[in-house]
Amino acid sequence: MLNNVRVVLVNTSHPGNIGGAARAMKNMGLNQLVLVDPVRFPDPDANSRASGADDLLSNARIVATLDEAIADCTLVMGTSARDRRIPWPVVDPREAADLVLDQSALPEAQIALVFGREDSGLTSDELQRCQYHVHIPSMPDFSSLNLAAAVQVLAYELRMQGLQREGAPTKMHKVETTAVFNEIPATAGELEQFYQHLEQVLVEIGFHDPQKPRQLLPRLRRLYGRVHLNRMEMNILRGILTETQKAIGVKAAGERRS
Amino acid sequence: MLNNVRVVLVNTSHPGNIGGAARAMKNMGLNQLVLVDPVRFPDPDANSRASGADDLLSNARIVATLDEAIADCTLVMGTSARDRRIPWPVVDPREAADLVLDQSALPEAQIALVFGREDSGLTSDELQRCQYHVHIPSMPDFSSLNLAAAVQVLAYELRMQGLQREGAPTKMHKVETTAVFNEIPATAGELEQFYQHLEQVLVEIGFHDPQKPRQLLPRLRRLYGRVHLNRMEMNILRGILTETQKAIGVKAAGERRS
Repeated sequence: MLNNVRVVLVNTSHPGNIGGAARAMKNMGLNQLVLVDPVRFPDPDANSRASGADDLLSNARIVATLDEAIADCTLVMGTSARDRRIPWPVVDPREAADLVLDQSALPEAQIALVFGREDSGLTSDELQRCQYHVHIPSMPDFSSLNLAAAVQVLAYELRMQGLQREGAPTKMHKVETTAVFNEIPATAGELEQFYQHLEQVLVEIGFHDPQKPRQLLPRLRRLYGRVHLNRMEMNILRGILTETQKAIGVKAAGERRS
Repeated sequence: MLNNVRVVLVNTSHPGNIGGAARAMKNMGLNQLVLVDPVRFPDPDANSRASGADDLLSNARIVATLDEAIADCTLVMGTSARDRRIPWPVVDPREAADLVLDQSALPEAQIALVFGREDSGLTSDELQRCQYHVHIPSMPDFSSLNLAAAVQVLAYELRMQGLQREGAPTKMHKVETTAVFNEIPATAGELEQFYQHLEQVLVEIGFHDPQKPRQLLPRLRRLYGRVHLNRMEMNILRGILTETQKAIGVKAAGERRS
């Protein structure tokens, strides 16, 4: 159950929190843990707080960057406590679990739930790699949950709704933004390559000036992030970019020849 | 809010868990903490894990028995991981929060959420003092949550449902399918102009051959149709098309002049 859902902890400072997160995951039936550049790991404090979820710790994948952790993911959700300048699709944990469970039923789906640093959360750059931001509705004047507690809340919602779905197999199929047309969803790595290609072409055609970014790229990430591209659509968009480059390049080559 | 709901921790061994519970409570708007015969309290570990919820710790009421902690309560709910020999009304955290919020609106209501020892939970005697048992639906083979994590789950459900009852949003921005981010949505007419512009550019860059359409345009309509573009995004996309044409056109003009 939920083997295609991973918990990604970014740059965690306290190994006790990694252990607490592992325990919360195992309690709720999650088992894929990815650690991005952990400050101290492995560490006895992690095993102590894991209280029997040591298997998740020993199987944890350790990577250097968030991009590595999510490259093959078809849905990436990042937890966020704060308001950002560019509004992003924000869901509460109930909606997040609903979206994750929809997605997890698709072929080749891989889902990442991304949690940031204890003190400062995820950076803007990291948050822009997420299609959705999950906000746990805490008190505005004391809003920061313990990391393992935040993992617990999300894992709990997944388990609750997973059980409810198993008990209600006759539920009508919903029109979802994530589960479109039963086609293979694009991965975060493919999406990232698309964004880089797009940025390159926007510079080449003179639409984007990296010295005056005007939030163009975040806006485009937000747009294409929320549409949940499938692989065929991704190929079409990449094809358009490549042909655009050829169309510019051919003419430019012609100019040079003349 | 929820001043008549108290969290009662029975015979807690690790002060860190008391601090973690206090933090989870304060995150979710609970502030009444009662400690029944704590093994170590006060303790620096409690304050460390409370991370700013020290006020709940210093205001915590310390009593010797569960009876003292709940004597004035009109509703008592006890958390339980295990099946008991005598069946009891068992609710999940959603139902528990619903019952608590119903009760909390009554005059002179006082509600206790009772959590047992880290290793062995509540005794049968203690559980029989509770009107309901709350079962967090964990995995049967790894069912015991960390104490603070269990408090977090119940407190989260109370906060979620409390906000829903008030009609308050549980997330910062709603994900709207029609009008995202309070921005002006694009009209069907604007969308149609965009599709025509897009088709024209796809022909110009040599990506699209109207004689061999291969369902390219319907696929692009489906993609951009489901993302619900707002006007700013529409302007960006139209701008990209225009600049692409200029990038081609400028070179073409150069060629013609040469």
